[in-house]
Amino acid sequence: MIETAGVLRTIAMVVEYDGTGYHGMQRQTTLPTVAGELERALSKLFAHDVRIVAAGRTDAGVHATGQVVSCTTTSAFDLARLPIAASAMLRGSRIAILRAVEREPGFSARRHALARSYRYRIVNRTAPSPLNERRAFHVRAALEIATMRAGSEQLVGEHDFAAFCATPPVRGGTTRTLTGISVDRAGDFVELWMTADSFLHQMVRIVVGTLVDVGRGRLTPQEVGAILVSRQRERAGFTAPPHGLFLERVHYAHPI
Amino acid sequence: MIETAGVLRTIAMVVEYDGTGYHGMQRQTTLPTVAGELERALSKLFAHDVRIVAAGRTDAGVHATGQVVSCTTTSAFDLARLPIAASAMLRGSRIAILRAVEREPGFSARRHALARSYRYRIVNRTAPSPLNERRAFHVRAALEIATMRAGSEQLVGEHDFAAFCATPPVRGGTTRTLTGISVDRAGDFVELWMTADSFLHQMVRIVVGTLVDVGRGRLTPQEVGAILVSRQRERAGFTAPPHGLFLERVHYAHPI
Repeated sequence: MIETAGVLRTIAMVVEYDGTGYHGMQRQTTLPTVAGELERALSKLFAHDVRIVAAGRTDAGVHATGQVVSCTTTSAFDLARLPIAASAMLRGSRIAILRAVEREPGFSARRHALARSYRYRIVNRTAPSPLNERRAFHVRAALEIATMRAGSEQLVGEHDFAAFCATPPVRGGTTRTLTGISVDRAGDFVELWMTADSFLHQMVRIVVGTLVDVGRGRLTPQEVGAILVSRQRERAGFTAPPHGLFLERVHYAHPI
Repeated sequence: MIETAGVLRTIAMVVEYDGTGYHGMQRQTTLPTVAGELERALSKLFAHDVRIVAAGRTDAGVHATGQVVSCTTTSAFDLARLPIAASAMLRGSRIAILRAVEREPGFSARRHALARSYRYRIVNRTAPSPLNERRAFHVRAALEIATMRAGSEQLVGEHDFAAFCATPPVRGGTTRTLTGISVDRAGDFVELWMTADSFLHQMVRIVVGTLVDVGRGRLTPQEVGAILVSRQRERAGFTAPPHGLFLERVHYAHPI
């Protein structure tokens, strides 16, 4: 390991976490958050205060297998060793750093992200699944995949997604580009994937809640398009719970 | 619901559980076990003492998605309603009854089982997986799938598996027929499936430990065959931990 302390490096990290028990991604003064835990561990490893920027502001209870965070450091810490060293520092937490690489100066996990992919898992059967208790949303009513797909297709493309937004952003409006959405069944599980340039607050969970209402026959696929056009949150479905949601991948011009 | 109380019925149930926190499947006087919890719930629903028989005696920490248990009852309880009624009784536990059906008098989930299929999950990468902490065994050393497969093939067929047995059974010897074994990689996960008429005590976990030793180059595939022939437990590999193991299916002449 070559000592180059003092040289400022920009680092990107792929992070997995079990969101159960965390008050979301973003740092809060007193509550345990993913960012708070990561900053604590990285500050020890780098021997200076670390502040991270995350690609996705996941809410309390939401999981990630491919969150990306960035930070700067003057430490010469060997990045190939970071996942193993961090796993010792993060023992007792539900967070792991899977990979760490140096990026160009000024790189931001948030601003340079081109798109995010989320997955939502549903257990769709009478009995709950103890093995997926904090990893999937339990829906008893039989979901019809064909109508859910037809409804989901109404959302693809560039639209004002205000109807699927809990709290509108302060800046930048509510137009987003949903580049892909899929609904698939595998046995008792229904899985939805969504990719967009970025997502509004609770957008994935409100889309899922609305498509679940389609799948159980409370809404028609066509009504999903009408809800989108209305831009009224109260016309869309319920907000599906956080524990079925996973931030799976963040896309960049140069993969992390 | 037709009241037929007093008529003895034999019932088979498919059960899922998260083995974390349970002292295995089999009833114990004071420790929490899966059988103990199930019997408590079923005794309430059927309004008489219930004793169950399980197809697989899973050890402490081992999970199941398709365990099968049987019992008899004089209750006329509607079996179609049992999964939902049991899920209320089992709230707070990590157990669910997925399905309940009536079987012929004398049916035993254990004695009539023709075969059992187990799955073993390994996370094979530097960093642990917080989302799979109690659901997969973390192995850091890169595992070579090809040699693990070659080793696994030495075990297929009818053999004396004494070398892969923690505690030999009191009756019936240590010969078993392993009808199928597979080793596959999907991203960071390595999954093993095994199907046999029945399994010896900790047989799956000792086979997995031995094949992990093959995958990381500590044993050759050929040595797996030599270990089998030796019938000496001390020549086989370590016992892989319980939390990666799932009883997935129990096979009968007439499916449950």
